[in-house]
Amino acid sequence: MRTSQLYLSTLKEAPAEAELISHKLMLRAGIIKRLGSGLYTWMPLGLRILRKVENIVREEMNRSGAQELLMPAVQPAELWQETGRWEVFGPQMLKIKDRHERDFCFGPTHEEVITDIARTELRSYKQLPMNFYQIQTKFRDEIRPRFGVMRAREFMMKDAYSFHANFESLEATYAVMHQTYSAIFSRLGLKFRAVAADTGAIGGSGSHEFHVLADAGEDLLAYCPDSDYAANVELAEALAPDHLRARALEEMHEVATPGKIACEDVAEFLGLPLDKTVKAIAVVNDANVFHLLLLRGDHNLNEVKTNKVEGLATFRFATEAEVEAALGCRPGYIGPVGIPETVRVVADRTVFAMSDFVCGANKPGYHLKGVNFLRDLPDPAVVADIRNVVAGDPSPDGKGKLELCRGIEVGHIFQLRTKYSESMNCLFTDQDGQQKVMEMGCYGIGVSRVVAAAIEQGHDDKGIKFPSALAPFTVCIVPMGYHRSETVRAAADALYLKLVAAGVDVLLDDRNERPGSMFADMELIGIPHRLTIGDKGLAEGMIEYVARSGGDMEKIALDTAVDCVRGKLAA
Amino acid sequence: MRTSQLYLSTLKEAPAEAELISHKLMLRAGIIKRLGSGLYTWMPLGLRILRKVENIVREEMNRSGAQELLMPAVQPAELWQETGRWEVFGPQMLKIKDRHERDFCFGPTHEEVITDIARTELRSYKQLPMNFYQIQTKFRDEIRPRFGVMRAREFMMKDAYSFHANFESLEATYAVMHQTYSAIFSRLGLKFRAVAADTGAIGGSGSHEFHVLADAGEDLLAYCPDSDYAANVELAEALAPDHLRARALEEMHEVATPGKIACEDVAEFLGLPLDKTVKAIAVVNDANVFHLLLLRGDHNLNEVKTNKVEGLATFRFATEAEVEAALGCRPGYIGPVGIPETVRVVADRTVFAMSDFVCGANKPGYHLKGVNFLRDLPDPAVVADIRNVVAGDPSPDGKGKLELCRGIEVGHIFQLRTKYSESMNCLFTDQDGQQKVMEMGCYGIGVSRVVAAAIEQGHDDKGIKFPSALAPFTVCIVPMGYHRSETVRAAADALYLKLVAAGVDVLLDDRNERPGSMFADMELIGIPHRLTIGDKGLAEGMIEYVARSGGDMEKIALDTAVDCVRGKLAA
Repeated sequence: MRTSQLYLSTLKEAPAEAELISHKLMLRAGIIKRLGSGLYTWMPLGLRILRKVENIVREEMNRSGAQELLMPAVQPAELWQETGRWEVFGPQMLKIKDRHERDFCFGPTHEEVITDIARTELRSYKQLPMNFYQIQTKFRDEIRPRFGVMRAREFMMKDAYSFHANFESLEATYAVMHQTYSAIFSRLGLKFRAVAADTGAIGGSGSHEFHVLADAGEDLLAYCPDSDYAANVELAEALAPDHLRARALEEMHEVATPGKIACEDVAEFLGLPLDKTVKAIAVVNDANVFHLLLLRGDHNLNEVKTNKVEGLATFRFATEAEVEAALGCRPGYIGPVGIPETVRVVADRTVFAMSDFVCGANKPGYHLKGVNFLRDLPDPAVVADIRNVVAGDPSPDGKGKLELCRGIEVGHIFQLRTKYSESMNCLFTDQDGQQKVMEMGCYGIGVSRVVAAAIEQGHDDKGIKFPSALAPFTVCIVPMGYHRSETVRAAADALYLKLVAAGVDVLLDDRNERPGSMFADMELIGIPHRLTIGDKGLAEGMIEYVARSGGDMEKIALDTAVDCVRGKLAA
Repeated sequence: MRTSQLYLSTLKEAPAEAELISHKLMLRAGIIKRLGSGLYTWMPLGLRILRKVENIVREEMNRSGAQELLMPAVQPAELWQETGRWEVFGPQMLKIKDRHERDFCFGPTHEEVITDIARTELRSYKQLPMNFYQIQTKFRDEIRPRFGVMRAREFMMKDAYSFHANFESLEATYAVMHQTYSAIFSRLGLKFRAVAADTGAIGGSGSHEFHVLADAGEDLLAYCPDSDYAANVELAEALAPDHLRARALEEMHEVATPGKIACEDVAEFLGLPLDKTVKAIAVVNDANVFHLLLLRGDHNLNEVKTNKVEGLATFRFATEAEVEAALGCRPGYIGPVGIPETVRVVADRTVFAMSDFVCGANKPGYHLKGVNFLRDLPDPAVVADIRNVVAGDPSPDGKGKLELCRGIEVGHIFQLRTKYSESMNCLFTDQDGQQKVMEMGCYGIGVSRVVAAAIEQGHDDKGIKFPSALAPFTVCIVPMGYHRSETVRAAADALYLKLVAAGVDVLLDDRNERPGSMFADMELIGIPHRLTIGDKGLAEGMIEYVARSGGDMEKIALDTAVDCVRGKLAA
């Protein structure tokens, strides 16, 4: 394509609203344009990129044997009432009334619709397994849409749903989808990681998230460089320390710690390492039982894990008044020593193995030092893994130490089991003639989010650095003096046509702009390979090549330019 | 593709809900599946067809120089308030409130959004003309959704919007779009007609509808077989008769016509031709002025044309009480003779040239015969073209006589002029440095509707007869005994691979079904070309070819089958 045929609209500065680098660059490059809060138009340049993602996703899904269909965006409330999600899904679901005052929603996801299709279409084990997918616009009414298409309200998603006669079949398709997702993100040229994810209410081990690695990622991931282990920190298990609790050496005694509340400050003030301190977090469960959660001073609470502790499936942080009522002390200096028996103490595994530690004295301005379980306070009611893993923790598979990185979730695969098929009566007749409930899996990719994630992973101060697979064009030709020099024009046009004929996705910048401005645009929009043609070089039959990913400018012969470009693309 | 890899789900009988043949066949063939009123899932087979339409539309739009983008489906109310359409659009627009109680709609069309984009993106005459388009899901809350995807609530549409520095530029792009639409429907292999259409409030001659011709079409079209003239009957002009009003020969006299109300019954009862009768239709305008509209007995009122008569831009049919109050007679025997001066009479051009006619006597059970203008009643206040043309009427271009046919509207192109750009302040800086309002055009194609229209045009008692361009597959191979005969299987597999390699979109029916059942399915889903392979023919190196469009079965040599198929496809 020629820029004269392309609607290209770049900006020098990103609008002030944009916080995230990918959001800024997508606005500056003219990839998206804001219509309203969380609503974006994909401009012509951006749609090219989006379609490249979409096509790779489609090709790999088809290759996996999945069947593409297209369900309506607008869904009747009745189906959601069958699964009980009409009330449960919450305000993220955009509810609609039609002209006859009937209830609908703009689909945030399609489990109910596809299960309705499956229960009427798939009757026999002979039709199973079946994996249906679609690539479609979804809507989730985010309370605070932000970061451009990263957390938009309207977005494009690939969602697949598989149906099975038994769990083994679900596991087999789940494994195929895991491979397919790996193939998709590999083809897209992204650095990614599949991590074990939380399965929430469904339980089991059947859920993985696919993350594009990027410093600005919302998710923290734990992985073991020496093994395959990888998990969202939400889920990654912190093993119990492999040492027993040491013998008490100190007597417990009160120390004045005026104005020192955070464990870091207390440790520094007392000249102790942070890992000798214990913090107590006051929470209340849904039966109004007051709890103290004990964590080592350098550790952070993991709410997902805490929810799995018996009695804490739902909890909230205690109010100041509740803390004072339960412990006789305001938050800041609270601790587990000398507290009423009605307070339930839940200690992290690490804390349970500590001795001679420091904790709040339940007395403003004071901490206790040399505290020991069994001597100064009873062993905690519950010992559990309730903290986030940290770098250096042992890998749960026992094969090394964990490291941490940040990621952007772009895919999620999930063994739904019979959550939806049971409530919606999605049955089939098995080989033995019996009616059985289908097993289900679901598999999502945030197609529009992938574009933003790729930019978070690949950018510099000049703009976007797209991998070839999703760049709007693979190669650009920037002629210097296209509207001035007949030689340059002829050479540029000829090279353009040769590259098109060779099947290269090439953009010829035929605008009458200064070279600097054309270079800046091509760098901003992230074209991976640039060819520059000028009178001076042509006099010697040479043009210039430069890679967006970095590296020096190379002079190459015009005659062999097509082969040279092919070589670069294959590299 | 092989049927074993395709989700194929055909039905012997269409669900009772379906009235229209295309709706029945789409359900029976498993092209669509109903989710709710006016909401359909495109099943895997159907999505293949829909994508073929979509791709042809996209290719031709790109060829025309239009730029594809993708706007959000959900649109903020504020933009619609700028053009005043938030209130005017009516209950077809699905209005939505988000979690913050802000107003949005699920876009029924995108003039407001694109004009908002244009007014910020396009600032200079140098950027004009610009034609943006998208292929996207729209929603219109039809009061009575029916006919499947023909009048669904959620549907796929290609909508394009062009922006111009002046009217000449708009006219040029409009002409390009006219050609592009003709190219699209030609490539789709459909019999279609472009007809002049009503431009409603905007006026001018800049609107054409594209209709797929089919007996079940909702629209009546008038065309001249001897010229290019074609128009929706809504718009087609009925010329004034080329003869003057004849001299009165009869005296006016009352005749008893007991129980005869319809002109047909009156004419038959009196032994007169229908074209000697005049019917009077009582209407009331928005200023409460009572009108009588006079039409020849064999003609029908055209409301669109009537709306163009001064004072009748809006009108409604009079109630029985209003008729009785104005004329002293109930409806059935009313007429224009001897009526109060406050009644405004609007006569169709044909009526104005009539003499010695029959009309109601304003007296129950009686008509007047031998009625003549000027003698028995004054000339009408207004003479205008207010009737539908009929077959045999002179073509408005003077080049022959009109014929009528029925069509299904699948495309509409429209010169919007400055209707939206003016109210939304969509300005550009012209060459002379002046700020001017842009001219606009819009161009729609009902992508999902095209599939239904193609089926209305091409079907028989066995099912769908798709043109090759939008058939789910171009060719099918039906092996008889694929699971029984090694010879048949080997020949079928080899031919399948050869056709795939030749770029033919071929379906191999590798199901273990009876041949009759496979034939029926392939006929039902409308594959244009069928190859049958059986042991008996193979013994002589022969297979069978049959075209879905009709014609006898042909024996062809297996060796030359690929060339033979290519020949059929090129024919």
